[in-house]
Amino acid sequence: MPGELGLLRAGIIGATGVVGQQFMVALQKHPWFEIVALAASERSAGRPYGQAIKDAKTGARRWYADEEPSDKILGIPVELADALEGRCDIIFSAVESDQARELEPRFAKTTPVISTASTFRMEPDTPMIIPGVNNDHVKLLDYQRKNRGWKGFILPQPNCTTIGLATTLKPLYQQFGLKLVIMTSLQALSGAGRSPGVGGMDILDNVIPFIPNEEEKVQRETQKILGAYCGTGVEPARFPVSCTCTRVNVMDGHTEAVFASTEKPVSVEAARRAFAEYDGGLAEAGLPSAPRHSIVVRDEPDRPQPRLDRNAEGGMATVVGRLRPDSALENGIKYVLVSHNTKMGAAKGAVLLAELLAKQGWLG
Amino acid sequence: MPGELGLLRAGIIGATGVVGQQFMVALQKHPWFEIVALAASERSAGRPYGQAIKDAKTGARRWYADEEPSDKILGIPVELADALEGRCDIIFSAVESDQARELEPRFAKTTPVISTASTFRMEPDTPMIIPGVNNDHVKLLDYQRKNRGWKGFILPQPNCTTIGLATTLKPLYQQFGLKLVIMTSLQALSGAGRSPGVGGMDILDNVIPFIPNEEEKVQRETQKILGAYCGTGVEPARFPVSCTCTRVNVMDGHTEAVFASTEKPVSVEAARRAFAEYDGGLAEAGLPSAPRHSIVVRDEPDRPQPRLDRNAEGGMATVVGRLRPDSALENGIKYVLVSHNTKMGAAKGAVLLAELLAKQGWLG
Amino acid sequence: MPGELGLLRAGIIGATGVVGQQFMVALQKHPWFEIVALAASERSAGRPYGQAIKDAKTGARRWYADEEPSDKILGIPVELADALEGRCDIIFSAVESDQARELEPRFAKTTPVISTASTFRMEPDTPMIIPGVNNDHVKLLDYQRKNRGWKGFILPQPNCTTIGLATTLKPLYQQFGLKLVIMTSLQALSGAGRSPGVGGMDILDNVIPFIPNEEEKVQRETQKILGAYCGTGVEPARFPVSCTCTRVNVMDGHTEAVFASTEKPVSVEAARRAFAEYDGGLAEAGLPSAPRHSIVVRDEPDRPQPRLDRNAEGGMATVVGRLRPDSALENGIKYVLVSHNTKMGAAKGAVLLAELLAKQGWLG
Amino acid sequence: MPGELGLLRAGIIGATGVVGQQFMVALQKHPWFEIVALAASERSAGRPYGQAIKDAKTGARRWYADEEPSDKILGIPVELADALEGRCDIIFSAVESDQARELEPRFAKTTPVISTASTFRMEPDTPMIIPGVNNDHVKLLDYQRKNRGWKGFILPQPNCTTIGLATTLKPLYQQFGLKLVIMTSLQALSGAGRSPGVGGMDILDNVIPFIPNEEEKVQRETQKILGAYCGTGVEPARFPVSCTCTRVNVMDGHTEAVFASTEKPVSVEAARRAFAEYDGGLAEAGLPSAPRHSIVVRDEPDRPQPRLDRNAEGGMATVVGRLRPDSALENGIKYVLVSHNTKMGAAKGAVLLAELLAKQGWLG
Repeated sequence: MPGELGLLRAGIIGATGVVGQQFMVALQKHPWFEIVALAASERSAGRPYGQAIKDAKTGARRWYADEEPSDKILGIPVELADALEGRCDIIFSAVESDQARELEPRFAKTTPVISTASTFRMEPDTPMIIPGVNNDHVKLLDYQRKNRGWKGFILPQPNCTTIGLATTLKPLYQQFGLKLVIMTSLQALSGAGRSPGVGGMDILDNVIPFIPNEEEKVQRETQKILGAYCGTGVEPARFPVSCTCTRVNVMDGHTEAVFASTEKPVSVEAARRAFAEYDGGLAEAGLPSAPRHSIVVRDEPDRPQPRLDRNAEGGMATVVGRLRPDSALENGIKYVLVSHNTKMGAAKGAVLLAELLAKQGWLG
Repeated sequence: MPGELGLLRAGIIGATGVVGQQFMVALQKHPWFEIVALAASERSAGRPYGQAIKDAKTGARRWYADEEPSDKILGIPVELADALEGRCDIIFSAVESDQARELEPRFAKTTPVISTASTFRMEPDTPMIIPGVNNDHVKLLDYQRKNRGWKGFILPQPNCTTIGLATTLKPLYQQFGLKLVIMTSLQALSGAGRSPGVGGMDILDNVIPFIPNEEEKVQRETQKILGAYCGTGVEPARFPVSCTCTRVNVMDGHTEAVFASTEKPVSVEAARRAFAEYDGGLAEAGLPSAPRHSIVVRDEPDRPQPRLDRNAEGGMATVVGRLRPDSALENGIKYVLVSHNTKMGAAKGAVLLAELLAKQGWLG
Repeated sequence: MPGELGLLRAGIIGATGVVGQQFMVALQKHPWFEIVALAASERSAGRPYGQAIKDAKTGARRWYADEEPSDKILGIPVELADALEGRCDIIFSAVESDQARELEPRFAKTTPVISTASTFRMEPDTPMIIPGVNNDHVKLLDYQRKNRGWKGFILPQPNCTTIGLATTLKPLYQQFGLKLVIMTSLQALSGAGRSPGVGGMDILDNVIPFIPNEEEKVQRETQKILGAYCGTGVEPARFPVSCTCTRVNVMDGHTEAVFASTEKPVSVEAARRAFAEYDGGLAEAGLPSAPRHSIVVRDEPDRPQPRLDRNAEGGMATVVGRLRPDSALENGIKYVLVSHNTKMGAAKGAVLLAELLAKQGWLG
Repeated sequence: MPGELGLLRAGIIGATGVVGQQFMVALQKHPWFEIVALAASERSAGRPYGQAIKDAKTGARRWYADEEPSDKILGIPVELADALEGRCDIIFSAVESDQARELEPRFAKTTPVISTASTFRMEPDTPMIIPGVNNDHVKLLDYQRKNRGWKGFILPQPNCTTIGLATTLKPLYQQFGLKLVIMTSLQALSGAGRSPGVGGMDILDNVIPFIPNEEEKVQRETQKILGAYCGTGVEPARFPVSCTCTRVNVMDGHTEAVFASTEKPVSVEAARRAFAEYDGGLAEAGLPSAPRHSIVVRDEPDRPQPRLDRNAEGGMATVVGRLRPDSALENGIKYVLVSHNTKMGAAKGAVLLAELLAKQGWLG
């Protein structure tokens, strides 16, 4: 049980970026983890964190999370990633995909790595887990370790847009089977990060109907997450998924309009019940960051809305509404969901994943 | 030929609202029509138009169109609707649905009425026409006149969201047949009007995933517009249409993500060609408000965008992009479209319709 | 001492509006007050609160605060205002100005009334208090009671734009004197309420440089608040105040650019110290809603910003930054402030005022 | 007279940036100028313009102006700046300040340069001109040429925020004298450019109350523009100017709240007349880009608004409204202005300047 032997030592790589800072917020008062080391690029290394995030020109502090960083964090020296080897029980990685390809395997030789990068998501020997949706895939980590000769492992976090979709499809898939899923997303600005992110002039009075690689990721990842663990990999779910992903002028919270065709007939009432009663085993696990309900159903006709619903259950639940029959599809059902892309969809979701691993004895 | 016998006399009812004002902008310099009368509610009647739209409290002018009203228009006296009877060659109606039910048939006894209200759209003896898409449905007006004993007629403009969808589906339907259409819209604020319209606090940093009755309208109207004229009505097209309609923080221009399954196999190249070469007979008709192309294809990966593309061809074309195969559907094709909801989608589109009628001799 | 004799019984009139709902949020878990009665217009009266705020057409709940209402509140029956007489220890009034003129004096005969309406702010026998700025003006309530023959009283909350300005001017006025104040505000949407409030189409990609009566209010109220209590009234402060008030596309948090000329020379360092060390006697009073510091100074060059700073100290502090000398004015100093218009600037500020009164024995 | 001897040959340096593209739009159909050469950095040079502005990753065209570039422009090869020497009658420079310091003097040896960079604005031998405000300062170019031994010259365009302020102050200064000017600006996103410009996440639901160096520029430039030409320089105007410059979520159009104290008493009516009748000699000069009126007065209480008024007179006029007495200042007058920062405030204003020079025989 975490905590009994003292706090688990956490390191964060990519610590000066948006996601890195969200890791700090998610960890700075955490009952099980203690941030012991921060790594970033050469430009930042060698200075206390508070100095490293100061804008050279204006002196403004480049801190992007709502919650302020503690004085303790501001004082932690920023190091180069290599310097963290062997000093942590877990590494939270917030680096870009190409850096992840190089850095994460080096750490994984000795240390568990949880990553928000997309690099290893589709590796056959690597699971991709949404806590409360496919916890059982965690067993694949044993095979990954054996296969790669690692003492640690790499466990990637799914794409933020995948998370709300796969979470809500899970109870439908379990109870009714799925034949076809069509989804259009209206994604928040924070999903694109800040450097440079989406320009103010590009999104004002506008929609950008394209997010590079996003649709492919959501389609593949959804099938993998809802697939079946088979000892040496995951057999992807067979139903096809088709997406159009767009960017809208919203700070946080991805909205998704979902149209699904199920194997067995499904009424709106039955689907509503499946959502509302869905229990992926999170609540009883006693994880500090877990929502009480992974899915929250809103019955008002004009919900969910990202500004009103993104923070449901601390931003860790997916909120579902506008549940209607879809007579255009065989056994058709349609709904709208909102999920918080930078909480459950990024660092806080990764910390929840770490809690699940800690609880199951995979760390330390 | 219009203009040969002098300008056609146009009256506008509902003249003080957003759509009424768009009618004025579309007509104030029109080569074929002349605004001869304006009607509004009792509150406004009896004063020159310029006075009627002044805010009593602040004195601010309540004018909502980009183009300014001419001095001539500001001087036209606002009358009650009844006073217009017998004085116009055509009535443009911008009143709400329930008023339309009462007022429009009274005018239609003697005078052609083109209406942006939804009231009569689904009446069996009433056509609903997008110029350049289903011009042939106009013949149903003869049956309507006979059926109702009117000398005039009522011709409703389709819903603004229907227009972009039906326009782009037309060439696909003609060439490949359609089995299924799924659409999610991201609609502009101006579609909701101004009194009260969408509140600034409701839409800032938000998406509203519900527009009352909109989805039903788009589904039914698309089938009617792409249906077959049969002497005493329109046989609706048989392919099912399923929509989710949302509101986003965009001023003008509805964006729609479309997923379609066709009867015959369709490649992206063939669909692109079908869009780009689509000719609904508008160009050669010589109508002043007609776009050169009803559909404009943009090949850049991140287009169409409402702010950049809504004004293509003076806001009278539908802009299509992101054309991709959809492997989740049988003969699947997907794309994104932008169409201008208050130009082609409302008053200016209604004026184009009037031009078509004038050209064909239905007016005056 | 409040709480020793049980909770104080609070009634809210104007309970279905934006400010009324903010009162509920501010009071629903309050340690000293208990909401015992809610009043609204005839349209709402006679139904439980949860029913009264349901949209008749769509069924959507018209609740505007971030924090959700408790089940207890949703069950309280809405009554007509008259029915509250004699049943409350304090009335929080969130009605419009003209209703306030009629209703508030009726209650004041027997009961203390704290009001967000502007109606009585400039009455000579009526104080207008910002807790922590001019607590001493409360003594004028004795004169008001005598003058009007009331057992209760009316105590109006200042305008939300006045509050940030007067709070930050107080320490400058105390230490350096003031000769001239010029201020331009960039005000949030929530200051305009919701019915209809600012339209989404009016504010998107725009600034509205006019807020009816706002400038006059801020100018007069600032002088009254910083004026001197003189037994039968308040002698207004003599320095002139000139404002331009604008509306910007921000949800909450008024930003104000202030230019001041002081009597005595003032350095940036001295002004900074005056702000940072300002203590209006709030902290030691032990009031549940009081900020630790009425004024928070941010030294980063690009602060304060409404989105980042409006919630400082629970939305109850005014955040000051960009402190610079102003060489264009004699003893000139300029700065930017952000204050939360719907927390300290409205209901939560009014509740803080009630706490101050309770602590001093004016209630119950 | 321009045009009589053929079109003047124009080169643009910094051609791939936002301002460079605005130069193209302002020049591509110009009756007097012809774009003959485009220069940009090494990264872009060597390819046709249409290729150079294609995003390498996504293929999207990086074109930022509303009006589309002509095919002719898309085909012009991008060169390095040095290659333009000797081939142009005028160089329009849209490079950053530090590049301007190096490049512009090299061109000026032989060729007139009009620049939007701030580098040379405050040089004593260099005029800074707003056409229609201080045309007479152009004579200083003779001294600049002699002083620096140039055949060409450098003529910098003032800061976009200065232009609206100085234009409206001019008639007040002329007729009433000025003692003091205080101004708060609410500036549009396009003033910050696009690379990276203001982030969408930074400005959504927010105001940024700081624009580096802007306030100093506006203060100094206003005094220089309204100063007196004295043979070898400009004697700056003596009245002090104090500004606070903020960024708001508006695409184009800077709004400024101005408070002024005049030497002689000024009534609102007199000030209104001074604005409305102001004639800086532009109209009669017959310049293609000139507004009919440099200042447009709007009497509605809630104008000017950037979205509604920025395009007055093709974006070349400053729109003034909310004219009121300011009793806090001696002979005080206050008003709000809107001016288009990327039209009159940038490239189109620079082209107007070039037209003035051409008309007066300074080019070719």
